[in-house]
Amino acid sequence: MADKDPLHDRAAGNGLLHRRMLLQGGLAGAGGLVLQRAAAAGRAPGAPLSGYGAPSRFEQAVQRGDFSNQPGTLGSGASRTPLQFLEGTLTPSGLHFERHHSGVPELDPAQHKLTLHGRVRRNLEFSTEDLLRYPMVSRIMFLECSGNSAANLSAQPKALDCGHIHGLVSASEWTGVPVSVLLQEAGLDPAASWVIAEGADAARMNRSIPMHKMLDDAIIALYQNGERLRAENGYPMRLFLPGYEGNASVKWLRYLQVSTQPAMSRQETSKYTDLGKDGTAEVFTFPMQVKSVITSPSPGLHLRGPGLYEISGLAWTGNGAVNKVEVSADGGASWAEAALDGVVLPQALTRFRMVWQWDGAPCVLLSRAVDSSGTQPSREALLKRMGQRFFYHYNAIQAWRVGADGQLQNTYV
Amino acid sequence: MADKDPLHDRAAGNGLLHRRMLLQGGLAGAGGLVLQRAAAAGRAPGAPLSGYGAPSRFEQAVQRGDFSNQPGTLGSGASRTPLQFLEGTLTPSGLHFERHHSGVPELDPAQHKLTLHGRVRRNLEFSTEDLLRYPMVSRIMFLECSGNSAANLSAQPKALDCGHIHGLVSASEWTGVPVSVLLQEAGLDPAASWVIAEGADAARMNRSIPMHKMLDDAIIALYQNGERLRAENGYPMRLFLPGYEGNASVKWLRYLQVSTQPAMSRQETSKYTDLGKDGTAEVFTFPMQVKSVITSPSPGLHLRGPGLYEISGLAWTGNGAVNKVEVSADGGASWAEAALDGVVLPQALTRFRMVWQWDGAPCVLLSRAVDSSGTQPSREALLKRMGQRFFYHYNAIQAWRVGADGQLQNTYV
Repeated sequence: MADKDPLHDRAAGNGLLHRRMLLQGGLAGAGGLVLQRAAAAGRAPGAPLSGYGAPSRFEQAVQRGDFSNQPGTLGSGASRTPLQFLEGTLTPSGLHFERHHSGVPELDPAQHKLTLHGRVRRNLEFSTEDLLRYPMVSRIMFLECSGNSAANLSAQPKALDCGHIHGLVSASEWTGVPVSVLLQEAGLDPAASWVIAEGADAARMNRSIPMHKMLDDAIIALYQNGERLRAENGYPMRLFLPGYEGNASVKWLRYLQVSTQPAMSRQETSKYTDLGKDGTAEVFTFPMQVKSVITSPSPGLHLRGPGLYEISGLAWTGNGAVNKVEVSADGGASWAEAALDGVVLPQALTRFRMVWQWDGAPCVLLSRAVDSSGTQPSREALLKRMGQRFFYHYNAIQAWRVGADGQLQNTYV
Repeated sequence: MADKDPLHDRAAGNGLLHRRMLLQGGLAGAGGLVLQRAAAAGRAPGAPLSGYGAPSRFEQAVQRGDFSNQPGTLGSGASRTPLQFLEGTLTPSGLHFERHHSGVPELDPAQHKLTLHGRVRRNLEFSTEDLLRYPMVSRIMFLECSGNSAANLSAQPKALDCGHIHGLVSASEWTGVPVSVLLQEAGLDPAASWVIAEGADAARMNRSIPMHKMLDDAIIALYQNGERLRAENGYPMRLFLPGYEGNASVKWLRYLQVSTQPAMSRQETSKYTDLGKDGTAEVFTFPMQVKSVITSPSPGLHLRGPGLYEISGLAWTGNGAVNKVEVSADGGASWAEAALDGVVLPQALTRFRMVWQWDGAPCVLLSRAVDSSGTQPSREALLKRMGQRFFYHYNAIQAWRVGADGQLQNTYV
């Protein structure tokens, strides 16, 4: 037990250990102190019951952060999920990232309507109450802005924490009505191949979605993590497209226009397209590609001296389920396969875990995820393929440099 | 499509329909109106980004409710999850039920310690920061107070809503350190067969847990739904025992005493035991038994006239995974198998769904779940087996009476 040398259960270089070591009772002295004393605690009765709870006052620092406000447009911009403070695979709704193009509209669910029109046999209009009668599905799924992680496009690595770089991804259980049910009720024109979704925000944000996606697994989401949608996530109803770039899952949904062609709107021409090396733009690149990031340890969470730690992170892909995640503690010289925690769900966040014996020397931690399309690329490979002028869909391997003082920072390898 | 008679896809009596009907496009006219108009929405920019979000002001009525305060003890009692307003399988942390014996203590995570002592080779003490270095697991699991649903022990059915009767059950993703890892580090005396867990609340609430459970799947939970535990759920650390009655998952955990016998504490002798027909008490009846309830429609959510509805509800069991849920719309004369939504996880809430064509006549809706131990009992069968003097572990079938006016109420069948 305590006598066993954990390095005998080596999985890869620089202290990466097999998880079975833990199951066999091999962990010792990670932090427990041999000390016997009564824990101090008060005897006065505590706080009363409450109607709707909030985080502990000791967790007030855990907030969506790093607001990117767009000048001149009230409420527009983004806030990010503080991934480095979270564990597991879900994001509390209060910490789900935000991306608004004209702020958060306040929509009265008793007044709001969704209109389905265009190339259909009959136009339909749905109130919130109407939709609540329809059959629903519940799925735990990630949502990622395709602008996520673009901070790492800078020539030099920015001194940012994990949430600031990668916090435009969150995961919730989304419950709603399959779009296919509504389209079938309306009666589709066989020539119809696109659906143009438009929000009720002041920007009238709109995107064109391929019909196959709408018929496959798109939903009109009404609930998020058990309760009705939060206002900043589209209350009272939003489109949700599993695995697609977040912007396409139009919030505050008011129109679904069935069409034979895309709208070629601002958000799918000027924005949310990637300029390639030859000057042409990639458009309608919907599925988010395979990606992973170590959330702990990461910048801001420093190591308290040599010893055993768990390396914990998130992996995801819009192409289905994550197949594998590998971790390196020696800058990529050797890799070990991490444990994927719990049931690996498609289009959800997957938590990976790896035991690590840090020897106290400076090093570089990496993770790389694998899905049906292949392995997450290095930054160098991604830039070589995409050039220097793209902005969206950055999914390269993240490297964290560990200093001898236990501090971590963003780095490129 | 719209011409098809949905009753041709009958699954059981009084309008229960096969779900495949929907997948084939058979749903028509559930609520959509043939109407074309522009949805009204403002053009003024909306609200700004926020650090930690809250529900829409239109959802202010969705609160934990039905506080049962115990007279003379500040903050003691229970609040319930409003199940009738929720969907999916998770409970937002702000709506997780509460059950406190001396209110909610405010514990500083920098000061709080967990002490592991008793029949171990060496005593250990863990701070919150210590535990954060240990390997963790994340699991979506329900927590149910064993006093849940006891309102239906009354001789006449009480006019209560679903949350008031059954809202002492909630589900979250819990992340924490396996207790087995800590016990192994301490070194167990082979004679040890119980662990006595004690909280840092003013009541010093304590319970005795069989060693096999502690070694099997018990965790010290540090995170709930991605973020740190809420104060009312044991911040900064709690015991979590998958599938066991909620009271045993001691909150604000400060002591784990390894022992050769149970403590026979107040909460496992005077309370949380069931008085049987012969006057003897059943003690240490930990796993919550198979149960289900239709959450929609249910009292307070009235039906808006005849037509198609989705019957939606929750099922769970402490014995593992739910195998099957059946629904009746004719008071139990006939039953149809409901669809189990998504991936059915062990010791979690499972959402079941059934399509229902209501003809407008009064009727009684029922659901019954099946697990490895058998089928959820009728109220009559449960009372026959347990007698009239038990209070905990009520898991009988719930019946909702539907009136011709579309109103629902609690009833016994």
